[in-house]
Amino acid sequence: MEKLSDIKCFSGRQLRYKHDAATLNCEMTFSIFLPSQATQKSVPVLYWLSGLTCTDENFVTKAGAQQFAEKYQVALVAADTSPRGDNVKDDEQGAYDFGLGAGFYVNATEPEYAEHYNMYDYIVDELPALINAHFPVDGNRAAIFGHSMGGHGAITIALKNRDKYTSVSAFAPICSPMRCPWGHKALAGYLGDKQGTWQQYDSCYLIEHTNKVLPLLIDQGTADNFLIEQLKPELLQQACVKANYPLQLRMQQGYDHSYFFISSFIEQHIAFHAEHLSSLD
Amino acid sequence: MEKLSDIKCFSGRQLRYKHDAATLNCEMTFSIFLPSQATQKSVPVLYWLSGLTCTDENFVTKAGAQQFAEKYQVALVAADTSPRGDNVKDDEQGAYDFGLGAGFYVNATEPEYAEHYNMYDYIVDELPALINAHFPVDGNRAAIFGHSMGGHGAITIALKNRDKYTSVSAFAPICSPMRCPWGHKALAGYLGDKQGTWQQYDSCYLIEHTNKVLPLLIDQGTADNFLIEQLKPELLQQACVKANYPLQLRMQQGYDHSYFFISSFIEQHIAFHAEHLSSLD
Repeated sequence: MEKLSDIKCFSGRQLRYKHDAATLNCEMTFSIFLPSQATQKSVPVLYWLSGLTCTDENFVTKAGAQQFAEKYQVALVAADTSPRGDNVKDDEQGAYDFGLGAGFYVNATEPEYAEHYNMYDYIVDELPALINAHFPVDGNRAAIFGHSMGGHGAITIALKNRDKYTSVSAFAPICSPMRCPWGHKALAGYLGDKQGTWQQYDSCYLIEHTNKVLPLLIDQGTADNFLIEQLKPELLQQACVKANYPLQLRMQQGYDHSYFFISSFIEQHIAFHAEHLSSLD
Repeated sequence: MEKLSDIKCFSGRQLRYKHDAATLNCEMTFSIFLPSQATQKSVPVLYWLSGLTCTDENFVTKAGAQQFAEKYQVALVAADTSPRGDNVKDDEQGAYDFGLGAGFYVNATEPEYAEHYNMYDYIVDELPALINAHFPVDGNRAAIFGHSMGGHGAITIALKNRDKYTSVSAFAPICSPMRCPWGHKALAGYLGDKQGTWQQYDSCYLIEHTNKVLPLLIDQGTADNFLIEQLKPELLQQACVKANYPLQLRMQQGYDHSYFFISSFIEQHIAFHAEHLSSLD
């Protein structure tokens, strides 16, 4: 693991590292913000998963999250969105919604992608093991959130690993990849056309086939260009009603899909997680 | 004037426009954040000047300023840092610290730059006239702040136009362009080698040759790579002592030159200006 940068920010430190990722067979970069009290004790850790086209840096520079990570004394880890490097197969047409920058937080089974595209294992196992080993965080107090494709990643990963996270939240998540164009393309590309294998990565399916509840908060802007065709929060809402799963879905009037939307509500998400994390104190 | 974008952010609106700038003989872009109450009444306006290599967008995406512009109900204007376009002469070697992205907030007198490089007139006269005419701001309640080259711009412009601004602040400003490499290069390039013409753009000179005081706040990181060679706050401090000018200079332990530093103290700067602007209510 090699440190790339170390910058003071809101009395804490914004750090960036690269490391060889065994699950992805490539070098990966991640960012971590450590609040000021992490110099004296272990702090809870909150994982952020970004959307299509992003790296770890978009959230770090645009979300305005550090001030609230400092206020609530939680570490903030921002991961990349796909395997990286010249050896990693990209979409053949260089599309923004498949391949590099679009790992969709699944473990690929199609032969041409299976060597590198295992973002599910990377986020669930490898990255937390690395973080827990090298930083003053309490890995038993972890939560997860994300945006768009990363909102899908956060919800599916949390629902499948309830022992690992105390709470989950999302901004404008892709709520049912089995039922939207972005999801169809990604799941078909990484998993092949057997749709029976897709449902393990579909938040709506998972909500309906679970019996343990994790606190779940979603913010969705009403002026989001992707709302109707790609995001479909109404499908998740219906699944939650059917499964009697408590969902806090807030439709935010006039907000779009950008980091201006995320920054407007980031404090409330960090406070939401901090509340659940602190109940484990 | 043409609107480029309009995005909801912290209950206000983040807007971006382009327009033909007469003082610069080129098309320019600027951003303005209007807080929520601007739909009902005129609000005070705070001008932000950016540093070398920036456009209006760096501050808008990285500073985390909108939440505090909303909290204190002030409009925030972010300007570009130089004239722009294919017809505008750039540095011949494409240097980052001269030409495009490096207008230094002066009016050029050297013939090859005088047609376009008049950022002083643009920021002092043309842009505020445009803002006052088209947006719900009270042009009589204006303040100015900036970063690095933009900190130099904010301080010199405020000191020369005390009737136009209620207060001025800066993050890591170039305090004496007559006595640092960045300033030497810019002033020689835009104004020629007659150093007698440089002093009108030197904060230290202006502080010593004035008798009207404007509230002045400066934050400077101690881990800033440019501190010793380029920024030299000690020169401004000496000038203020000599002139008996009240300066609030805060050396911030461990902070660098980046937007992580700016974002850490942006609320305090906006609060500082809001306090002085509200005294004109």
